[in-house]
Amino acid sequence: MSIQESLDLLTRGTEDVIKLEELEKKLKKGKPLQIKAGFDPTAPDLHIGHTVLINKMRQFQMLGHEVSFLIGDFTGMIGDPTGKNITRKILTREQVDANALTYKQQIFKILDKEKTKVCFNSTWMNKMTSADIISLASRYTVARMLERDDFSKRFSSQQPIAIHEFMYPLVQGYDSVAMNSDVELGGTDQRFNLLMGRTLQGQYGQEPQVVMTMPLLEGLDGVQKMSKSLGNYIGIEDAPRDMFGKIMSISDELMWRYFDLLSFKSNADIAKLKQEMTDGKNPRDVKFVLGLEIVERFHGKQAADDALAGFKSQFQKGAIPDDIPEITLNTENGEIGLALLLKNAGLCVSTSDAMRMVKQNAVSVNGEKIADPKQLIKAGTTAVFQVGKRKFAKIEVK
Amino acid sequence: MSIQESLDLLTRGTEDVIKLEELEKKLKKGKPLQIKAGFDPTAPDLHIGHTVLINKMRQFQMLGHEVSFLIGDFTGMIGDPTGKNITRKILTREQVDANALTYKQQIFKILDKEKTKVCFNSTWMNKMTSADIISLASRYTVARMLERDDFSKRFSSQQPIAIHEFMYPLVQGYDSVAMNSDVELGGTDQRFNLLMGRTLQGQYGQEPQVVMTMPLLEGLDGVQKMSKSLGNYIGIEDAPRDMFGKIMSISDELMWRYFDLLSFKSNADIAKLKQEMTDGKNPRDVKFVLGLEIVERFHGKQAADDALAGFKSQFQKGAIPDDIPEITLNTENGEIGLALLLKNAGLCVSTSDAMRMVKQNAVSVNGEKIADPKQLIKAGTTAVFQVGKRKFAKIEVK
Repeated sequence: MSIQESLDLLTRGTEDVIKLEELEKKLKKGKPLQIKAGFDPTAPDLHIGHTVLINKMRQFQMLGHEVSFLIGDFTGMIGDPTGKNITRKILTREQVDANALTYKQQIFKILDKEKTKVCFNSTWMNKMTSADIISLASRYTVARMLERDDFSKRFSSQQPIAIHEFMYPLVQGYDSVAMNSDVELGGTDQRFNLLMGRTLQGQYGQEPQVVMTMPLLEGLDGVQKMSKSLGNYIGIEDAPRDMFGKIMSISDELMWRYFDLLSFKSNADIAKLKQEMTDGKNPRDVKFVLGLEIVERFHGKQAADDALAGFKSQFQKGAIPDDIPEITLNTENGEIGLALLLKNAGLCVSTSDAMRMVKQNAVSVNGEKIADPKQLIKAGTTAVFQVGKRKFAKIEVK
Repeated sequence: MSIQESLDLLTRGTEDVIKLEELEKKLKKGKPLQIKAGFDPTAPDLHIGHTVLINKMRQFQMLGHEVSFLIGDFTGMIGDPTGKNITRKILTREQVDANALTYKQQIFKILDKEKTKVCFNSTWMNKMTSADIISLASRYTVARMLERDDFSKRFSSQQPIAIHEFMYPLVQGYDSVAMNSDVELGGTDQRFNLLMGRTLQGQYGQEPQVVMTMPLLEGLDGVQKMSKSLGNYIGIEDAPRDMFGKIMSISDELMWRYFDLLSFKSNADIAKLKQEMTDGKNPRDVKFVLGLEIVERFHGKQAADDALAGFKSQFQKGAIPDDIPEITLNTENGEIGLALLLKNAGLCVSTSDAMRMVKQNAVSVNGEKIADPKQLIKAGTTAVFQVGKRKFAKIEVK
């Protein structure tokens, strides 16, 4: 791959590259670059939005560069002795190690295990003396630190900022010195801290790292950022068919965004898909390509193919899937209300949810739509109940 | 001595006592209190103004309390890696030890050597880990730190404040925790840092120290603060007769100020002297009492008595002192200008100073005033030259 092609791939989807010409210069050296990305030491529970950064690491890795997955455990193991920050948990070494293990289980679905260094900044930070820390603190001014967006807002609105919070960007910056990193990747919200690495490396006589920020991925709705609390996410532990179905539900526009940020296809391959769609290819079939790639990444090729087949069978043929769950429900007095039945079978989260689904004409029994949410189902009934497009259960009422 | 008498003595001359009722409470416990005062680790060259604080330590010591002379060497041994602060010298351990020795030579003229702990904050600060330092930094907010007068001024005038400067008050405050001090003494300019000790002690579960600030002593002119650069000082290494003479030169009003801040006489004794002056005693004779005490402190009783006798002989009888220096000066061409002669003999700091003194009618040769500063003195002359009231030399011109 030419330098230009590498640059095009590596900068795909990025928000900021500081500076592009420096990245080009580093690539031209023809040596493996040290790529750093830092992660919080608290228990990871990743959704696919978090993988945007990890995917970018993977791209560097595929081009032969050395990737370090840095767990910022040093500050995570420092408590808040004032007790003011009740949300801040102090992590023990054991917890950090357990969390690192969880990270590994998740990230090695994307990164090459053999070529990824997992490191902890406590390794070098714990070796620093009290004098070293104060010397580190001397390398930046209060005024410039207060330029960081969140500090600036809190300061002007008179919300307290504890002095040690000023140390954290310096520690993150010093990590780049300790790792002698060439490139640091992070979210856009990390921009200030990433730039700190450049500043400190310069002061410590190193060539400043290139900073690359990645955007936050939009959720399935295409508007809000992907987040668990908004429910618009794809969990990386989601079952293959759920994962596939969620990808099929996104808009065509969002699909291209996801290609840029989630796919490992080359820019040329993505351009080709776009051209095919322009030439009349069904967008659904292009989405299949994306869905297959993502599901394969987390669950393997067979699961991806099965998910595609299942999707086709269910939605294209309108058929009941082969593998629907079979459930037995007991009644108290020989009959059970439909809403309660749907809730107890797990097809709806609550009876009111069930009522709503019936009213929306989204519930059927053996393929027949049901209009009355209060309908009673008698013991002895065995039927396939369906809610919405994708929820099925074969229920025996006893 | 009653608690009230102790309080009166200890608070004499103080600028601030925070809080008086706490000091009273601590004194009432009847146990020796831990008294802390911190000093800069750079080479000391003390004048009598610096002893105001040390005198206050001595008063505590006389009342049976335990006095610690703390040398703040920890931060002094940390460099300024940015190289921006060119005035800041990094001290080595050897320099700190040498400076400590100089301090001891000077302070043990006032403090009881047997009852004074000389300690270094590096003892505990070097043992702190990097995490301990960050935890220390978490105990105070940026906004409150910026309330410190000099920080506030620099911040609002956009002069840089390096972040480690925020650490120094915290280190000083932590010293009080490490020493478990009951009282900290300092200059008025140290008020913020002294109060930090109270804050941190409270956070570390200790009873907060009482903070006592001492004013800066006025110099001989009674207006400006005593300082070497202003020339209005009494050096503690000044010769006995100089020291005595300088004290005799101060105003009566300043004399009482000096009694309060420099004398170890009891309040009652000072009140008695005041009464005597009101009753008609010559203020000069009261000043003798002060002069004798100060000279005796630094040079012993005999030197003090001699200084008094010399002063009386010189100024009261108008006689030339017995012990004037004898100097031989060589001319280049058989004669030398008066101004140059006075400079070379060390009676004036420069020829222009000498010119001025002659014009002020302050120079005499063998008791005769000289009016012409350009007068030439011929080789072969031997005479007593006098500048002002107190500078004499017997000079042989060759």
